[in-house]
Amino acid sequence: MDVAEFRRRGKEMVDYIADYLENIEQRPVYPDVEPGYLRNLIPSEAPVEPEDYNDIIKDVERVIMPGITHWHSPHFYAYFAAASSYPAMLADMLCGAIGCIGFSWAASPACTELETVMLDWLGKMLKLPECFIAGTSGRGGGVIQGTASEATLIALLAARCKVINRMRASNPQLSESEIFSKLVSYTSIYSHSSVERAALIGGVTMKKVSTDKNFAVRGETLKKMIEEDKAAGLIPFFVCATLGTTPSCAFDRITELGPICNEENIWMHIDAAYAGSAFICPEFRPLLNGIEFADSFNFNPHKWLLINFDCSAMWVKNRADLIGAFNVDPLYLKHENQESGLVTDYRHWQIPLGRRFRSLKMWFVFRTYGIQGLQTYIRKKMERRGEERRGEERRGEERRGEERRGEERGEEERRGEHVSLAKEFEKMVLADENFEICAEVIMGLVCFRLKGSNEINQKLLDRITKLREIHLVPCQLEERFILRFAICARTTELRHIQRAWSHIKKLAYEILQESSHCLKG
Amino acid sequence: MDVAEFRRRGKEMVDYIADYLENIEQRPVYPDVEPGYLRNLIPSEAPVEPEDYNDIIKDVERVIMPGITHWHSPHFYAYFAAASSYPAMLADMLCGAIGCIGFSWAASPACTELETVMLDWLGKMLKLPECFIAGTSGRGGGVIQGTASEATLIALLAARCKVINRMRASNPQLSESEIFSKLVSYTSIYSHSSVERAALIGGVTMKKVSTDKNFAVRGETLKKMIEEDKAAGLIPFFVCATLGTTPSCAFDRITELGPICNEENIWMHIDAAYAGSAFICPEFRPLLNGIEFADSFNFNPHKWLLINFDCSAMWVKNRADLIGAFNVDPLYLKHENQESGLVTDYRHWQIPLGRRFRSLKMWFVFRTYGIQGLQTYIRKKMERRGEERRGEERRGEERRGEERRGEERGEEERRGEHVSLAKEFEKMVLADENFEICAEVIMGLVCFRLKGSNEINQKLLDRITKLREIHLVPCQLEERFILRFAICARTTELRHIQRAWSHIKKLAYEILQESSHCLKG
Repeated sequence: MDVAEFRRRGKEMVDYIADYLENIEQRPVYPDVEPGYLRNLIPSEAPVEPEDYNDIIKDVERVIMPGITHWHSPHFYAYFAAASSYPAMLADMLCGAIGCIGFSWAASPACTELETVMLDWLGKMLKLPECFIAGTSGRGGGVIQGTASEATLIALLAARCKVINRMRASNPQLSESEIFSKLVSYTSIYSHSSVERAALIGGVTMKKVSTDKNFAVRGETLKKMIEEDKAAGLIPFFVCATLGTTPSCAFDRITELGPICNEENIWMHIDAAYAGSAFICPEFRPLLNGIEFADSFNFNPHKWLLINFDCSAMWVKNRADLIGAFNVDPLYLKHENQESGLVTDYRHWQIPLGRRFRSLKMWFVFRTYGIQGLQTYIRKKMERRGEERRGEERRGEERRGEERRGEERGEEERRGEHVSLAKEFEKMVLADENFEICAEVIMGLVCFRLKGSNEINQKLLDRITKLREIHLVPCQLEERFILRFAICARTTELRHIQRAWSHIKKLAYEILQESSHCLKG
Repeated sequence: MDVAEFRRRGKEMVDYIADYLENIEQRPVYPDVEPGYLRNLIPSEAPVEPEDYNDIIKDVERVIMPGITHWHSPHFYAYFAAASSYPAMLADMLCGAIGCIGFSWAASPACTELETVMLDWLGKMLKLPECFIAGTSGRGGGVIQGTASEATLIALLAARCKVINRMRASNPQLSESEIFSKLVSYTSIYSHSSVERAALIGGVTMKKVSTDKNFAVRGETLKKMIEEDKAAGLIPFFVCATLGTTPSCAFDRITELGPICNEENIWMHIDAAYAGSAFICPEFRPLLNGIEFADSFNFNPHKWLLINFDCSAMWVKNRADLIGAFNVDPLYLKHENQESGLVTDYRHWQIPLGRRFRSLKMWFVFRTYGIQGLQTYIRKKMERRGEERRGEERRGEERRGEERRGEERGEEERRGEHVSLAKEFEKMVLADENFEICAEVIMGLVCFRLKGSNEINQKLLDRITKLREIHLVPCQLEERFILRFAICARTTELRHIQRAWSHIKKLAYEILQESSHCLKG
């Protein structure tokens, strides 16, 4: 493919992408394929001769699209959102063309430096303490990881290295492997699976901390466990607190956990993968209070801040903790400026060596939307102003909504609409006495279920999944099987969640009638 | 940015990318900026209001380009190649638009299934033993990792889990931490820094194995170390062999190492990050003999197979080894098909949870080029046939080259031109008795130096780096400071390496004269 063909095919691809995203609503959100479907649709070996590009692009609709779960469909309510926006996609195109592998400053200074400054911009948007901002702190700073899983792992490994060094300095008689075997870390029973996995990888024990009735870890519970473990000769060294857990979007009480960790010389990492984006809004920022106690903090702009995957933002109070844990420095990676103390070599901050120029996406998105635009998006008001056509269609629905809302209007206005959509959905659920809400609705996630057995809820989910009109996934809270309804797509509107709720209700009533359950209301 | 603007801006971006790559040769390959240059060029905080897209795109030339090391410039001879091609970029655009996060089969079946089949296609191109091919083996298969670093780490962690389980089964009196502390792994003194780092992360000892005079690890040396360690009560569990080391592109003798590992129940991982792509050519495939002894194998199509970063291909003989090492399975990630045994959930195969739809790049590239096209690229003959204009310009130079080559022509033909370019460069070096070649030239890398001190060679490299006409990095072989000249860009031609050699020679002569060294010849 020469450059002239690339110009032509690239422009066709831009149009294909625009068409795909504009009309995504028409596609079934969850694919109707059996495992192994794809192998039968394409040859079992690569072609020997080059193929015509037209044949390749035709196969996107024939082979790929039938097997896609459409994460950006407004009928997608599963997991948490995956961010997507046009400026992020443009920046990613540029990132691919530059194609630098920015493992060190010298490998492409712009790649490293823009990242440092973008993490400062974002840190300031979140009002992080100055110690996390590279431009003002002598010691801290930010980095883009691929995923929150990697951020948690990096934090745990840095903490492991730090505690081993400290213990060996104060107890020279202890061997590294003796210390290693006594290390213990803590996280909520509701933490993301990647936290437990980080401990598996790091080869250390991780204990699960139970929560209060809001599914949040409290200081007292942690303190008791730490004291027991210390009494048993163990060495507590790492706590991973979560702001916005995956099952129910619960917030561990970091104002209680932080002082305990600081006092006990325990590394506190905060994982706010989903909820972190909301902290750019003043009304949500109080949930981040206590961040000053943390050694490291991470959230995923690739979830809820319009920046396409992968872009997981991580800050550390003391970058020497990371660098010290992983520094292996062969000659072929050295460069003239690395000893100056002025440059950052991000390869010491992460698991992989190579890294793409991901900060371009942040730069394009922050500037295209502005802080206000991003806040508005979290509050989900952008479509109202920007997309007139849709706005017109929705006005009628909104009027009806406003009547219902009445005097709550002022509060709703402040809360913002992405959250409001969740709140609207919560109201729909609460208005039907066959259903119950299972966790406080704080951001864009609603946990709900049919009053009744786990089996009947499993049955409801199975039917929803089978019909493919909407897509959602379950979670488990205190042995209860629960349905998670997460507002995900950039284009989700009130009419979508109304339709989703009608659909869920219809299926639920069918099941209740089949099961001879008493249908209430 | 609405969809209409995206259509317009996207097409502009396609043209910008085409212009950038077409004219990349005119830009200085290595940037002339001081650490911290970028912070002064942009505001210290994100804008509150949205900015005009025109201002953003203008800043690409003002802020970004001055700080780019142009990895795809034909004047770039540093590290190893980073792959780049137009079909890969098109596929990446599509990947961004689909924007699925393919951690499980259900999260987007096409994403998982295309990956499995593409790794089969690629495995067959390499003539991997059937046990590594998912479609024919009951137990093995391939996966895309982000980087070779992650592949090595995953392999080491799987090996660690396996040996701990085996030792505990056979020695129930041993605790996990006792076993842990006795584990020992091995790799060449010339292995990539990420191998040592994998052991640091995994918390296990890694011993460096010395090499023969070709910088290759031999069976005897390894066997001796293993025996000594076993005698000392240690548990050898992991060997990482390298095919194509970073310093000199040396090939560890896997036909010797493999049987030892198999006999000793040691996991053998093979890292062929750079050289692996060449194994699709029959003439290079013998270097992969011994693969049948390996438990896992990895190379980077994002280096030398025209697929943009990141795309690191990894195969395992027994996928249960990976899955068993990392399986943490919360309800919100379960899906109806996972117990069927028919589906692959790649999240168990890797460090991160989330993953992009990277196999699209493989599919587009394999089909656009065909196996023959890819082989030709490795052999670097494509430009001759495809790009007529350039071909015309080069014909004169080639004729001169052909006269020099004389009867070697037949062999050169088989060897292919990317390697031939390296061979041509080697000849230029050998023709000047002030210089020496420091390692056998097998693929696209030439290790050379001025006969003389490390200091004088360091001085030569410093001057090359400072003048920014070409870019290369050093390595160290047996305490000697050496210059690495790697054929990197897709568009590198004979005229480029001729110009590079003239430039190097000129600088070297200046230094020799300044230092009052005796200039030979």
